[in-house]
Amino acid sequence: MTETAIDSDTLDALAAIVGPGNALTADEDTHPYCIEMRDLFVGRTPLVLRPGSAEEISKILRLANERGIAIVPQGGNTGLVGAQVPDESGAEIILATDRLDAIRSVDPVENTMTVEAGVILENIHAAADEVDRLFPLTLAAQGSCRIGGNISTNAGGTAVLAYGNTRALILGLEVVLPTGEIWNGLRSLHKDNTGYDLKQLFIGGEGTLGVVTAAVLKLFPKPRSQEVALAGLADPAKALELLNVAQAHAGPLLTGFELMPRLGIEFVLKHLPGARDPLEGPHPWYVLVEISSNSDDIPARQLLESMFEEAFEKEIATDAVVAESVAQAEALWQIRHSLSEVQKSEGGSIKHDVSVPVSKIPAFLDKGMAAAADLIPGIRPVPFGHMGDGNIHFNFSQPEGADKADYLARWDELNAVIHGIVAEFGGSISAEHGIGKLKKKLLPDVKSEIELDLMRRIKAAFDPNNILNPGRVL
Amino acid sequence: MTETAIDSDTLDALAAIVGPGNALTADEDTHPYCIEMRDLFVGRTPLVLRPGSAEEISKILRLANERGIAIVPQGGNTGLVGAQVPDESGAEIILATDRLDAIRSVDPVENTMTVEAGVILENIHAAADEVDRLFPLTLAAQGSCRIGGNISTNAGGTAVLAYGNTRALILGLEVVLPTGEIWNGLRSLHKDNTGYDLKQLFIGGEGTLGVVTAAVLKLFPKPRSQEVALAGLADPAKALELLNVAQAHAGPLLTGFELMPRLGIEFVLKHLPGARDPLEGPHPWYVLVEISSNSDDIPARQLLESMFEEAFEKEIATDAVVAESVAQAEALWQIRHSLSEVQKSEGGSIKHDVSVPVSKIPAFLDKGMAAAADLIPGIRPVPFGHMGDGNIHFNFSQPEGADKADYLARWDELNAVIHGIVAEFGGSISAEHGIGKLKKKLLPDVKSEIELDLMRRIKAAFDPNNILNPGRVL
Repeated sequence: MTETAIDSDTLDALAAIVGPGNALTADEDTHPYCIEMRDLFVGRTPLVLRPGSAEEISKILRLANERGIAIVPQGGNTGLVGAQVPDESGAEIILATDRLDAIRSVDPVENTMTVEAGVILENIHAAADEVDRLFPLTLAAQGSCRIGGNISTNAGGTAVLAYGNTRALILGLEVVLPTGEIWNGLRSLHKDNTGYDLKQLFIGGEGTLGVVTAAVLKLFPKPRSQEVALAGLADPAKALELLNVAQAHAGPLLTGFELMPRLGIEFVLKHLPGARDPLEGPHPWYVLVEISSNSDDIPARQLLESMFEEAFEKEIATDAVVAESVAQAEALWQIRHSLSEVQKSEGGSIKHDVSVPVSKIPAFLDKGMAAAADLIPGIRPVPFGHMGDGNIHFNFSQPEGADKADYLARWDELNAVIHGIVAEFGGSISAEHGIGKLKKKLLPDVKSEIELDLMRRIKAAFDPNNILNPGRVL
Repeated sequence: MTETAIDSDTLDALAAIVGPGNALTADEDTHPYCIEMRDLFVGRTPLVLRPGSAEEISKILRLANERGIAIVPQGGNTGLVGAQVPDESGAEIILATDRLDAIRSVDPVENTMTVEAGVILENIHAAADEVDRLFPLTLAAQGSCRIGGNISTNAGGTAVLAYGNTRALILGLEVVLPTGEIWNGLRSLHKDNTGYDLKQLFIGGEGTLGVVTAAVLKLFPKPRSQEVALAGLADPAKALELLNVAQAHAGPLLTGFELMPRLGIEFVLKHLPGARDPLEGPHPWYVLVEISSNSDDIPARQLLESMFEEAFEKEIATDAVVAESVAQAEALWQIRHSLSEVQKSEGGSIKHDVSVPVSKIPAFLDKGMAAAADLIPGIRPVPFGHMGDGNIHFNFSQPEGADKADYLARWDELNAVIHGIVAEFGGSISAEHGIGKLKKKLLPDVKSEIELDLMRRIKAAFDPNNILNPGRVL
């Protein structure tokens, strides 16, 4: 068991709340909860609590609040900014939501689903599918991330363009406060103007204001027809033109618009078994387009075809392939979803999860890539992502043959350059991953003192003893 | 000038901030700011301040905070719950935003508009229209309400079904805090996960947490084709079936779905000059349907026709008329928009702005109308509104020949009955109008103590001396 300054009485009392089988103390049991998947954060904890109900979480937090014990809530442990991993002190206790995995109800008439915080996103997709409905939140970690974490980080993903961020998909929440009270805000209403909209603070609050224990989710009609295509283009300015053409033809039925550079495709061809170059000959940039229709009267295929007719006529796209089967559509999406993974085989990668106003993406990419090359000659930019939302995963692979550790040592330096350009363009240094511990020190550069002060006032009002996910965000 | 307990030094200092022409003290000047349009709230004030900038508002609030002076922000004075009207004490000073009426920028490429708080909603519509864009927020008061008030009340209206409440239309805000600091949160990003989403507290905060001074609004493509129809139906259960058929055919292009009872149509025919019965013969219930497409590839007319084909085949609708011109479409919408107004000519009306889960509307209406008739025999229910959002304006006209004052004296009694049924159905007692002073006393019946306590903690954290819109909401 990890060495800790927490007295054994307190540890025993906390463990007793969840029962012996659900209080993990052996290092081999607690370790998986203490490491972040890229090994960027590795911590220690004397105790992982796996409560089975909001009532147990209430008891845990009440005790922790009385005794000043730091509690770190954890869902699927897929977060990318270190919010869910304990620090190295051994003085932070993990509260894992993995046992809260019940889907309480699915209502296809009302288009809602009520779930506990620990349900894995993919299981929510399946439950919606069973009643011919869609829960649109889609991201690479969906096989292991849990909805409580998605809510606490206001997760984005590839369906934001049509359906919004997680924030837009939540009708109600149940939350246990740092002081132990349970707030039941599990409403299913589309309109409710009865005071401050409290759920908005917990959505994207990164577990610092309360532990989300359950939620009412919005469901949508399942697409009756869906078309996926991949276009080759000269540059991001053409991609912006293509976005405008796509929106003019498909309107709100445009459900995906993802930008990728040639280098990313090359990494996929090199490292993803079975991958094939999707178009004849290379193109400097690619866009994956998805159009979905839930009406028999609006064939997605027709919209896609008339969109590309205009795109070719105006010389916006150079080439394009339309998926002729579900398997082909999945193969195109797999290229996009593999981009992060395949970069690992190319040495170190310095990453930025940033957003700028959509129309500024071409100029932003130009300036960012040039500045990075000035700083580190030979650096290989692989910017990709959700162009329709203005959100670019601005990743840079190390120069070929460079030393990985030397390269990664320049993380903060490159971050500073790119984030400076983000600021010039009125952008955000964390579009969808959050702040956690990774970006906490950057916050004073991008927020006014009054904004930080308001955040601190809210934190103090909700968590006066600073016991819940302390040191994250603020 | 109104008698007041505020010392003349303070009044002079406040007036000096805005300059003599913009500090109103004569009763004939201040009176229009002190009455609510239905005369439900009539107050008094010694001073109406008409600041011309966020900086002036900052100075006003700083002084008011130091000296403990109550400030009541007011936009277009169209609110229906008394939040914007001073009380009768003469100790509340009005801060009117009507001079903050600049449209700072319109960006049709980025689909955003930056406006000051005092811009009238209709002027925002016009500015969007000029660049071939749509700002979708649509409500009866749009010719006089101001966007700051729309934001502070999270206004709803008839376009929520497709575009969401005001909350969904806001990208960024500028707010002056009760303590005088100016928060510049005028961002134009679709994704930004850098800490708590503060703007969500001011949206729907009813002016109790800060004074909204400017906002970045989302614009949308303007519909290329739009179709409006009015259907006659047997009952609200058929209307629910029609909603499902409409959504299956039009998906996200269904932009309006409004329920009306025959009695409402009769009131319109009787009191609206030039109104004509829209269908041959009477129908117990009516639904106004609007479908809008911004794509040439998706003709709205075709969707509407195939939708009604199914509706007639399944005997959901009894009859329907499709507008054949913009003038006809406007005439159909005018019936809907006149419903509140024409009720005034039928004596007293006791109102409820409530929501329930959409699928429960038929049962909710049945039970509510029966309970009202039990309480007040001869009462005439005129429930109408945004069926697609679950939001019904559950208005009741007095029995024919009843005494208006005697009838209105039973307001609270009937409210209690209807709100009790709302609670049974898991609904909200204020779907879109807010709480203000009118519904403040009802809040403890519908919110848990912990929810009220969290709201109080936020209020205290933002407004420690309780000077901004005190006594509203909380």
